[in-house]
Amino acid sequence: MKGANKQLTKGERTRRNIVAKAAVIFNQRGFEGASMQDVVEAVGLEKGSIYGHFVSKEALALEAFDFAWADTEQKHMANLDSVSNAVDKLAIHISNYVKTPSFAGGCPLVNTAVDTDDGNLALRDRARRAYRGWEGALVDILVDGQIRDEVRHEIRPQSVATFLISTLEGATVVSRIDKRSGALAYAQENLTRFLDIEVRAR
Amino acid sequence: MKGANKQLTKGERTRRNIVAKAAVIFNQRGFEGASMQDVVEAVGLEKGSIYGHFVSKEALALEAFDFAWADTEQKHMANLDSVSNAVDKLAIHISNYVKTPSFAGGCPLVNTAVDTDDGNLALRDRARRAYRGWEGALVDILVDGQIRDEVRHEIRPQSVATFLISTLEGATVVSRIDKRSGALAYAQENLTRFLDIEVRAR
Repeated sequence: MKGANKQLTKGERTRRNIVAKAAVIFNQRGFEGASMQDVVEAVGLEKGSIYGHFVSKEALALEAFDFAWADTEQKHMANLDSVSNAVDKLAIHISNYVKTPSFAGGCPLVNTAVDTDDGNLALRDRARRAYRGWEGALVDILVDGQIRDEVRHEIRPQSVATFLISTLEGATVVSRIDKRSGALAYAQENLTRFLDIEVRAR
Repeated sequence: MKGANKQLTKGERTRRNIVAKAAVIFNQRGFEGASMQDVVEAVGLEKGSIYGHFVSKEALALEAFDFAWADTEQKHMANLDSVSNAVDKLAIHISNYVKTPSFAGGCPLVNTAVDTDDGNLALRDRARRAYRGWEGALVDILVDGQIRDEVRHEIRPQSVATFLISTLEGATVVSRIDKRSGALAYAQENLTRFLDIEVRAR
């Protein structure tokens, strides 16, 4: 990352800094809840300077979502290649999700989903694409596992992938409601059991 | 309900009407996002008249949450007594959740959880109590099932109850992100399977 940063121009570095700071603000407060003034204060630049890089609040919010999601996805998909078995890859994915601190303000997908339910269409589209990318990655792992006879042929990859994501995202929501619920640990415990008894080929 | 309404005074009926209308507004827009002016427009009364019944926006929002949650809970817990087996009760609960249209604006618990993450403490406390009530009801069903040898003694009621709620709430979030995800149907499919192979005593 340091090497990559060195090759950026000053303008590009400023732009990245704005996106990174704005990502936290938008993820914590929502698109409607966050004002450009909030972003100005977090970045420490004049409002005019920020609008020099982004034509609108929406344009900045979209890049901010992509930034927060890229960070989230990278952490959740880490180390999957350290094992070859498809079910073991899913178990690592679940563990990554449960053990990695989320992007500041919580899962960007949950936040954007609830924030944009009747709100910003472009952001909603961005969240939908992020979700489908995640779902697709898990479906690929399951289909590959079926081809290699590591995953039971009776399960439907689409169904199981959606179920895993639903449980993880829901555990995040429950944890936010009740920090003592243990929802993330219980999600891991039961999903791991589900993978072993229902998904893993014997 | 009609009979109960007849016994209410005019003031009590007005109060109920304000709470019912406000519940939709707060659930759709969030505590910060909804203004008293929005409530005024929905109810069709003067602002002064509404403040005559509720000392503050917060006081109204708390009753509005209770109203939305009572409606939600009643639908989710319907018909559980039509079966005696604990695992069958849980299956009906899941079916109720998946098939009942949610309160306008989506699950009040999810909305309040995300809305009040760094926001209104009294509302957060209300959501936490609502969650714990739900979790407690499912734990009771599982414990009763263990006593009657309908539920495997190896499972931990707390863990399974939290897991079920997490998956259902997460499927709600995923459905909001991607209406075509089929998340609620997939949640039902996989949770029912989980109940049958992991929770039900054989």
